[in-house]
Amino acid sequence: MSDSWLPSLVTATPQEGFDLAVRLSRMGVKLTQPSDQVRDKLRAAYEQDSAQLIAISQVIAIHFQTIAAANNHWRS
Amino acid sequence: MSDSWLPSLVTATPQEGFDLAVRLSRMGVKLTQPSDQVRDKLRAAYEQDSAQLIAISQVIAIHFQTIAAANNHWRS
Amino acid sequence: MSDSWLPSLVTATPQEGFDLAVRLSRMGVKLTQPSDQVRDKLRAAYEQDSAQLIAISQVIAIHFQTIAAANNHWRS
Amino acid sequence: MSDSWLPSLVTATPQEGFDLAVRLSRMGVKLTQPSDQVRDKLRAAYEQDSAQLIAISQVIAIHFQTIAAANNHWRS
Amino acid sequence: MSDSWLPSLVTATPQEGFDLAVRLSRMGVKLTQPSDQVRDKLRAAYEQDSAQLIAISQVIAIHFQTIAAANNHWRS
Amino acid sequence: MSDSWLPSLVTATPQEGFDLAVRLSRMGVKLTQPSDQVRDKLRAAYEQDSAQLIAISQVIAIHFQTIAAANNHWRS
Repeated sequence: MSDSWLPSLVTATPQEGFDLAVRLSRMGVKLTQPSDQVRDKLRAAYEQDSAQLIAISQVIAIHFQTIAAANNHWRS
Repeated sequence: MSDSWLPSLVTATPQEGFDLAVRLSRMGVKLTQPSDQVRDKLRAAYEQDSAQLIAISQVIAIHFQTIAAANNHWRS
Repeated sequence: MSDSWLPSLVTATPQEGFDLAVRLSRMGVKLTQPSDQVRDKLRAAYEQDSAQLIAISQVIAIHFQTIAAANNHWRS
Repeated sequence: MSDSWLPSLVTATPQEGFDLAVRLSRMGVKLTQPSDQVRDKLRAAYEQDSAQLIAISQVIAIHFQTIAAANNHWRS
Repeated sequence: MSDSWLPSLVTATPQEGFDLAVRLSRMGVKLTQPSDQVRDKLRAAYEQDSAQLIAISQVIAIHFQTIAAANNHWRS
Repeated sequence: MSDSWLPSLVTATPQEGFDLAVRLSRMGVKLTQPSDQVRDKLRAAYEQDSAQLIAISQVIAIHFQTIAAANNHWRS
């Protein structure tokens, strides 16, 4: 975790920005629960649970809003 | 998922922007649970569950806020 | 649903903007659960459930924020 | 409900803005559940339920953010 | 509650802004449940409940966003 | 808690901004439940609970949005 994993919020396309939002949402979990083993076990459960999948989608939406602003919404 | 699915946040009308918000909210789920089969099974349950439908509506609202900003709120 | 239902985010007054926010919150549900019959059945339950009413109020609040920005907060 | 209840988002002070946020959060509930009788019954329950009180506080926070922006954060 | 408790959103430091966010999150609860006695009883429960503590932290985060904007993020 | 813990929202990199968002999300809990002992006990439970980990990730996302804005999204 001490490595550099977030050098910039700038992405070439909206889609790459969305992918970054997904990564940030997962990093928010990882920094609280650093064990890969525990997170893998939890994933087996929540990926079958629509309420939690929707909650994850919400976290992604918030991060995507931030990243979109950082990229001036990729307006040419 | 490696295909291009989000070339731009710009839409011609607010309504198309709302449709895009719906797609983004679903993509947030899909990138966490890529199996079409599992998502179809989950959908059968959550589309009968008002609490989850409201939660989905909230994710859409956040994405719509982002998209509206990207389009200068479609002000002429 | 193929009809035009959202031509603009501009409203004459804050109150009309709030009404539009209510409509958008419902449309977020409708686009996920298009059946009027199912939604009517769900409504009978959630309109007696304060937690879900509060959740709906939250979705409205997010949409109202977007609409208020689109209208420059109706400042004269 | 057909009466005018939201002529403006402008308030003289932050505190009046907060009071308006409280009113908007309640209006979001009222427009979904218009019956005073039902809402009074629900209130007796949720005002003893901290999770719902916190959820209400969150809706107020979102509306207060909107109102604060509408008032340029009351900066002189 | 009729007294003045929110004269301004401006604070000298980010930390004072965070403290104000905490106060606003509590005020959102207090304006819905004014009884000190009831709130004290509820507090005994939710301060042992991590889900509710996280929910409170979320309300604080929203208010802090508003307050940070009001202070131009305390940039010199 | 009377010590200074938040002198500025400015960080050198997005990653440091994310770390600060994590700290703010925890501080929101700490200011409500100041006992280290109680929080340690709660942590043992919530770090095994994916729903709460996702909720924490959401609080982090909101704070990160604020911090990113404070840093002009670290655009050079």
